[in-house]
Amino acid sequence: MDFDAYLDALASAAPTPGGGSAATLVGALAAALCAMVARITAAAPKHAAVHGAAAAIAGEADALRAAFLTLRPNDESAFAAVVAAQALPRANDDERTHRTAEIQRALAHAADVPLHVAGRAVETIALAERTAELRNAHLASDVACALDFARAAFDAAAANVRVNHAYLRDAAIIEAQTKRLAALEATGRAREDAARAILAG
Amino acid sequence: MDFDAYLDALASAAPTPGGGSAATLVGALAAALCAMVARITAAAPKHAAVHGAAAAIAGEADALRAAFLTLRPNDESAFAAVVAAQALPRANDDERTHRTAEIQRALAHAADVPLHVAGRAVETIALAERTAELRNAHLASDVACALDFARAAFDAAAANVRVNHAYLRDAAIIEAQTKRLAALEATGRAREDAARAILAG
Repeated sequence: MDFDAYLDALASAAPTPGGGSAATLVGALAAALCAMVARITAAAPKHAAVHGAAAAIAGEADALRAAFLTLRPNDESAFAAVVAAQALPRANDDERTHRTAEIQRALAHAADVPLHVAGRAVETIALAERTAELRNAHLASDVACALDFARAAFDAAAANVRVNHAYLRDAAIIEAQTKRLAALEATGRAREDAARAILAG
Repeated sequence: MDFDAYLDALASAAPTPGGGSAATLVGALAAALCAMVARITAAAPKHAAVHGAAAAIAGEADALRAAFLTLRPNDESAFAAVVAAQALPRANDDERTHRTAEIQRALAHAADVPLHVAGRAVETIALAERTAELRNAHLASDVACALDFARAAFDAAAANVRVNHAYLRDAAIIEAQTKRLAALEATGRAREDAARAILAG
């Protein structure tokens, strides 16, 4: 993916990509930084005691990065489906009923994709905590950057879940997704606080 | 720039790119989102009252995005210069004196580049506040994402300024850069709080 072309598309008036898509890129940057710290640590003789842990973190970080990159087109197509449903004809009652149902179905999915991004972001925060536990002091600022990016990816994804809830009418879906988001938020905050404490030494 | 190749390089054990470089990409994503909100608003008849303001924001956002992209290679070469200075010979006193001076010079520059990134990040936060003032409610989540990303770019850049200070010996440079960073932090926090208040309606 060409980053400059992506930025041009993001900055344009086209409906996609938007903030939810961009959040997956920020999450991928966070995961890649965890992998970097893990790989440098795994190659350093003075960190031999944590080489096994570092190698495991590098592998998990690569998998998280791939997951974020898979979620990007999902976010874009989910939002495009909402826009397409809104463009359906509404000349009579049948068309209006069909259009409303399609919009609602699209909105539920458009909220579900960023919820998955938020889940990956919390996994990345937890991985950054384990990366901090490798205690490679020379790379503490890179772990801090990974936390900053994973936190931003979470917050951006959460905003995209909530914006869809503003238009969704299915109270059960809203409640279930809100509950899941709150649980992720709590875990993410706890793991981030623990990681920052390790970095502060 | 190919984003997947960049992520591979970031995740590798190579010294560059690192968190400071990645912060410029996150800042560019924030600026592009401000541009997107401004452009969609500038094309919407119902927002005619703010078309002039929206067009101005789009132009400034494009300039900020370009500034972030210019700073990325600067960050990478500044850090590479520190690594190169550390690799200089130190077989005798002359070589050791020369090496120390080169490391210190490289560190001062390696702290200065993320300080510029931090400055651009605060400009982006201030621009996101003006973007929020356009009051395009449908795009409030995208403005929130822009704030999340600009904040993360600032925090990541600030961490990269401070990590160089840990090895810098010139107290005057450290003091001047720390003062500048604190001023940016205060402005960024104030503008972000104001923007979040607008978004909360």
